[in-house]
Amino acid sequence: MSIPTIAASSNDTLAASLDQAINNKTKPLGSLGVLESLAKQIGLIQQTTKIALHNPAIMVFAGDHGVVAEGISAYPQDVTWQMVENFLAKGAAINVFAQQNNCALHIIDAGVNHHFGPRDGLIDRKLANGTQNFSRQAAMSRQTCEAALASGMALVADLDANVLGFGEMGIGNTTAAAALMHKLTGIAVADCVGAGTGLTSDGIRHKQDVIEAAVALHSTAIEPLDVLATFGGLEIAMMAGAMLKAAERRMVLLIDGFIVTSALLVAARLQPAILGYCVFSHCSDESGHQRMLANLNARPLLQLGLRLGEGTGCALALPLLHASVNFLNQMATFESAQVSEKAE
Amino acid sequence: MSIPTIAASSNDTLAASLDQAINNKTKPLGSLGVLESLAKQIGLIQQTTKIALHNPAIMVFAGDHGVVAEGISAYPQDVTWQMVENFLAKGAAINVFAQQNNCALHIIDAGVNHHFGPRDGLIDRKLANGTQNFSRQAAMSRQTCEAALASGMALVADLDANVLGFGEMGIGNTTAAAALMHKLTGIAVADCVGAGTGLTSDGIRHKQDVIEAAVALHSTAIEPLDVLATFGGLEIAMMAGAMLKAAERRMVLLIDGFIVTSALLVAARLQPAILGYCVFSHCSDESGHQRMLANLNARPLLQLGLRLGEGTGCALALPLLHASVNFLNQMATFESAQVSEKAE
Repeated sequence: MSIPTIAASSNDTLAASLDQAINNKTKPLGSLGVLESLAKQIGLIQQTTKIALHNPAIMVFAGDHGVVAEGISAYPQDVTWQMVENFLAKGAAINVFAQQNNCALHIIDAGVNHHFGPRDGLIDRKLANGTQNFSRQAAMSRQTCEAALASGMALVADLDANVLGFGEMGIGNTTAAAALMHKLTGIAVADCVGAGTGLTSDGIRHKQDVIEAAVALHSTAIEPLDVLATFGGLEIAMMAGAMLKAAERRMVLLIDGFIVTSALLVAARLQPAILGYCVFSHCSDESGHQRMLANLNARPLLQLGLRLGEGTGCALALPLLHASVNFLNQMATFESAQVSEKAE
Repeated sequence: MSIPTIAASSNDTLAASLDQAINNKTKPLGSLGVLESLAKQIGLIQQTTKIALHNPAIMVFAGDHGVVAEGISAYPQDVTWQMVENFLAKGAAINVFAQQNNCALHIIDAGVNHHFGPRDGLIDRKLANGTQNFSRQAAMSRQTCEAALASGMALVADLDANVLGFGEMGIGNTTAAAALMHKLTGIAVADCVGAGTGLTSDGIRHKQDVIEAAVALHSTAIEPLDVLATFGGLEIAMMAGAMLKAAERRMVLLIDGFIVTSALLVAARLQPAILGYCVFSHCSDESGHQRMLANLNARPLLQLGLRLGEGTGCALALPLLHASVNFLNQMATFESAQVSEKAE
C-alpha cells in the first residue's frame, strides 16, 4: 500500500480570479460570508472559476469495535448491524437527508460483527468481524490497517463524482475516535471523551478510564498508522484511505462529525495538504469535536447540535455547497445588471 | 385597520405526542439537535404530528428611506430600484437561492423612489416614493403606516402556502431598523448600529449620531405603531402586517436578518404570541442582529456571516425545515426497523 501524494490546493493567480468573480456579483462586498469562501475553495480544488458539483455522494462505513467489551457504549453492539439493515431499508436519518438532497449513498461493511450474506446495496469490504479490544491488544494488525486503507482508496478510485461525504456507523467508535484524537493531537483524554450515543456522567468517566489505561498500555504507538492500527476501527481506517484518494483526485471532501474527523486527523498527519480539500459540514454536539476542529483550524458550516453520525451533517450541508456554486455561476454582475457600485 | 389576534402555538397534549414520535425514531435520543425542536415547533404551529410544508414562498418588500439624505449608506439610493430590476431579471442572490430550493418568490414595491410602470412579476403596493427623512420629521404618517400594515396583511390573506419567508431591499434600511431596535428594546443606539452594506468606522459613527439626534427629536414616539411610523420604512411596515396575518393563518414564518427582525420586533410588541410561529433562519453579520435575536430569545438556524438581506437567509435555511419534516415523516422507528434500544 502506498499513500497518495496530495498536491496543495492553493494557486495565487486562480485565487485572484475567483475573488474578482465573487466580488463582481450584485451584492455588497463579502456579504455572502462563508458561502464566498466556500465558492473560492471549490474553485481552487477544481482548478477553475467555472465550478460545478457532479454526482454528490456519501459513503457510510460501518464497523464494530472490540472495546465495547469494556462497557463503553449506551447501546448494544448489535445496533451496528441493525442500523446497517436500517440503511439498506432506507429508514435511517441519512437515507432521508441524502434522498432529500439528491445525494447518492454507498453503504460499506468495513468490519461489522455480523454475517449479512449478499445484500442489494451493501458493499462488502469486511476485513474482520470487528476489531480487537484495544484495552488488551492492538485493535488490528498493521497489515489489516493497511488493507483497510487500500480498500478505502480502491472504493474512491473509480467513483464518478467530484463531491464525496463521509459517514460512519459503529457502536463504540466514539471511544476509538477519542483515543485517536488524544494520541494525534496531545489533547488530554478528558477533553476528548464525550457521551457518544448517550452515556451518563459515570459512563463518560469510565470511558475515559478505559482510554487512559489503553493509552498507557500502548505507549509505543506514535506514528499515525501505528496509532490508527492500535486504537482505530476498520471503518475509520477505510475512511481515511477513501479520503486520501478523494483528495488526490481533487474531489471536495465533506467531513461529518467526531468519528469522521478522527479519520481525517490520521489522513492529515500523513498528507497535510488534504485539509485544503475538506469542507467541514458541522460541529457535532459530541464534546470533543469542537476541540478537534480547532486543532485542524476548521470552521464548520453548521452548528445544529447534531450527534448522530451516519454522514447526516454532510447531507444537511450539501445545499450550502450548491448555493456557493450557484451564486458564482448564476448571479448577475454589477455591470450586467447595471446596478450602481458603492460610492467612493 | 385591525391587528390580527394570534393564538399561542403551545399545546401540551400535542407536544407530548410530538416528543414521542420524535424519540421513537431510529437515532439516539436528541441526536438530531435543532432539527428535533424544529419538527416539534412545526407540529405545534400546524396542530398535528403529520407535518408538511406546502408551497414555501418568500416575499421581498422593497422601499426607500428619506434618511439617506443624511449620508448614512455606502450605496446610492438608486440601488434600491436597480436591485428590484435585478430581482425581476432573476439575477440577484435571492433569485438563485429561491430557485435552488423550489421556493416561490414575490417581489413587492412597498415604496420605492422610482416609477417602474407595470412590470411582470412586480407586485405594486407603492404607498409613496420612499419615506420622509426622519432626521427632520416622522418617516410616515400614522395613517400611511396603518395602510402599509393593512396592505401587508392583504398580501398574505389568500396566499396558498404554509411557510412564508420575509426579505427586503431598501438602501438606508439598516438605519431605520437600528432606530426601531433602540426604541423597542432599549438597547443603546451604539449597540444597534452596524456597517450596513459597507460603511467605514467613521460612517458608522455618523449613522449613530444621526439616529441619536432623531431619537431626541421624536421623544414622544413610544407606542410600537408610533415608533414604526416615525422611524420605519414602508417595506418594514408592510412586512410587519404580512407577518401578523401569516401567524394568524398559522403559517411557519421564516425570519431573515437585521431589517426583517426589526419588523418582527414591532409585530411581537403588538402580538407576542407571533414568536411561536417564527423560525429564525440565520444570525446576520450586521452587528446589532445578534443582540436583537437575544432580545427575542431566538436561536438562529444558520451562522454563515451573511449580511445581504433579500430573504437570502430564509432561502438557505429552507432545506433544514424540509429535513425536519422529512425525518419525522420518513424515518423508521426502533420497533419498525427492529433496532435495539438503549441499555437500561
